[in-house]
Amino acid sequence: MAGAMDFELAAAVSEAGGLGSLPAAMLTPDQLRDQVAKFRSRTGKPLNVNFFCHAPPTPDPAREARWRERLAPYYREFGLDAAAAPPFAVRAPFDGAFCSVVEETRPEVVSFHFGLPSRELVVRVKAAGAVVLSSATTVAEARWLAEHGVDAVIAQGLEAGGHRGMFLIENIAGQVGALALIPQVVDAVDLPVIAAGGIADVRGIVATLALGAAGVQLGTAYLHCPEAKISAPHREALANAQADATALTNLISGRPARGIVNRLMHEVGPISDIAPEFPLASGALAPLRAAAEARGLGDFSPLWAGQAAALGRALPAGELTRRLATETLELLRALSGPAAASARSS
Amino acid sequence: MAGAMDFELAAAVSEAGGLGSLPAAMLTPDQLRDQVAKFRSRTGKPLNVNFFCHAPPTPDPAREARWRERLAPYYREFGLDAAAAPPFAVRAPFDGAFCSVVEETRPEVVSFHFGLPSRELVVRVKAAGAVVLSSATTVAEARWLAEHGVDAVIAQGLEAGGHRGMFLIENIAGQVGALALIPQVVDAVDLPVIAAGGIADVRGIVATLALGAAGVQLGTAYLHCPEAKISAPHREALANAQADATALTNLISGRPARGIVNRLMHEVGPISDIAPEFPLASGALAPLRAAAEARGLGDFSPLWAGQAAALGRALPAGELTRRLATETLELLRALSGPAAASARSS
Repeated sequence: MAGAMDFELAAAVSEAGGLGSLPAAMLTPDQLRDQVAKFRSRTGKPLNVNFFCHAPPTPDPAREARWRERLAPYYREFGLDAAAAPPFAVRAPFDGAFCSVVEETRPEVVSFHFGLPSRELVVRVKAAGAVVLSSATTVAEARWLAEHGVDAVIAQGLEAGGHRGMFLIENIAGQVGALALIPQVVDAVDLPVIAAGGIADVRGIVATLALGAAGVQLGTAYLHCPEAKISAPHREALANAQADATALTNLISGRPARGIVNRLMHEVGPISDIAPEFPLASGALAPLRAAAEARGLGDFSPLWAGQAAALGRALPAGELTRRLATETLELLRALSGPAAASARSS
Repeated sequence: MAGAMDFELAAAVSEAGGLGSLPAAMLTPDQLRDQVAKFRSRTGKPLNVNFFCHAPPTPDPAREARWRERLAPYYREFGLDAAAAPPFAVRAPFDGAFCSVVEETRPEVVSFHFGLPSRELVVRVKAAGAVVLSSATTVAEARWLAEHGVDAVIAQGLEAGGHRGMFLIENIAGQVGALALIPQVVDAVDLPVIAAGGIADVRGIVATLALGAAGVQLGTAYLHCPEAKISAPHREALANAQADATALTNLISGRPARGIVNRLMHEVGPISDIAPEFPLASGALAPLRAAAEARGLGDFSPLWAGQAAALGRALPAGELTRRLATETLELLRALSGPAAASARSS
């Protein structure tokens, strides 16, 4: 959810009884400190801070040049200077500076994407009192996370919007749907499993509880909320999303991530080895994105969305959280009706 | 399940209270007539017969030549004559002759894959008393099927083993996980929805009921049964399958289908535009498949499997069916426990 929300949405979710998560990947340590302070001033409930923990890339001038050459026609179309220096690609991995903010602000939960940081940093995060989570997209990744000390595993089905958490594999062909992934992760690790991907209403919540999940993580469902800080083209695309409107693309950032298919994905990908290594691909796209968004177009924007985007409701985040909780209990009771009747009659 | 089972497995499922399905795509009309007779002699319970309904392909000699050229090194490795005429590719679409068998044998349910046959044939099938089903992989396909007269829609999540039922689209990038697909299909059509794909144990069954499915269709789970007529390499691969071991490939038949990654998929695909149109790709593979299987290898075999293959149990089909039914009621009751307790305390 990096780049799509701030403390406001997270605080509304936590205040309503969920666990609000604050994405730190596109913040500086100082900005994160400020966001946590604002969250704390809004609610006394627990906070989850989420970090990316990718290895910083080695810039590859030849690859960058090929990427900029491929984008040059778009630069011309939007009247942009293709020779200008590319903006800084703003997705920073968790490091000592971020860890110091964790030690100082003590979020109750710290979650990672793309594996885990170094053992030393994980030890420091745990010593700061945080429950540690990370995402697995395969059974092997779930086992690896369990062996490396997470307190719970997020099983991320391939329906999920945004970046795939994959870190032991590179090929997306073997990525697994939530319905198949969750029970296999539950069987593989002796830890609570949090279901993610393709869950946007109560049916998905109860379904993943049936699969053995101890909890659920919803992302795209909250992008519909007024508190989400997303571009106008992104909000419009979400409102009109169909289940098959998304695809995995590596063009926006350099790593596979699911979004609503836009012009860039349609014309250049959605997957291509021309995109520079994560997160460098986003650099040369930034001017195009800004120019297109100024015309109301999401042609080069990250239109992150999971495959259940169409099930979302544009409610305030706190109200959405409370309604989902109430509806979960109602559906669990309704589902048990026929089973209970069958038990009585047998 | 064409090529992987016959009347024996279907009859065991129906006799146990499920709806056994007999795949007709790799049978002649005479063979189908014989199979239905054997099913009827085994059980008086209802029968589902499944047909493919693809448009017969136009042979393309240039494409066939490229395909055989790509396979030539394998022919040499296995000491096969690459100049020999390719065997007939044995996947026949539903036609008047098959329809006559339906009219004669009156299966209670007829299901189609790849859309529906002509309106005239659908009318004849319904007049023969059959309930008509077909598979949808997107919401748009579900709506199309509803408009064209099916009695229920099978929502096939991308976790499913074997051929994708897709018929309005060609690009697999937009294929949808069951967790996201099923509720959106339920919302889109005013018909019962049958969940398929990624369901291999009771957790998947109850999960898809929570998503709004009226019933479930299991395929891969039954490949583990002793009644399944699969190759030794296929059985071995299933027994060792991991969730991320499968991929969609068009190499085996010409259409995207999910199987455990074998040598052909690894070295040539898993997706490639070199494969001839469905079902012609299978022709030139047949001698390779036979030669490799004779050495105990599944290098060129269809190792069809869904992403939940690892959850299967090698039980007789009737016992598996009865256990799944019992366990479904148990899990529904167990799930309702916390909700009922919460209702009492609130």
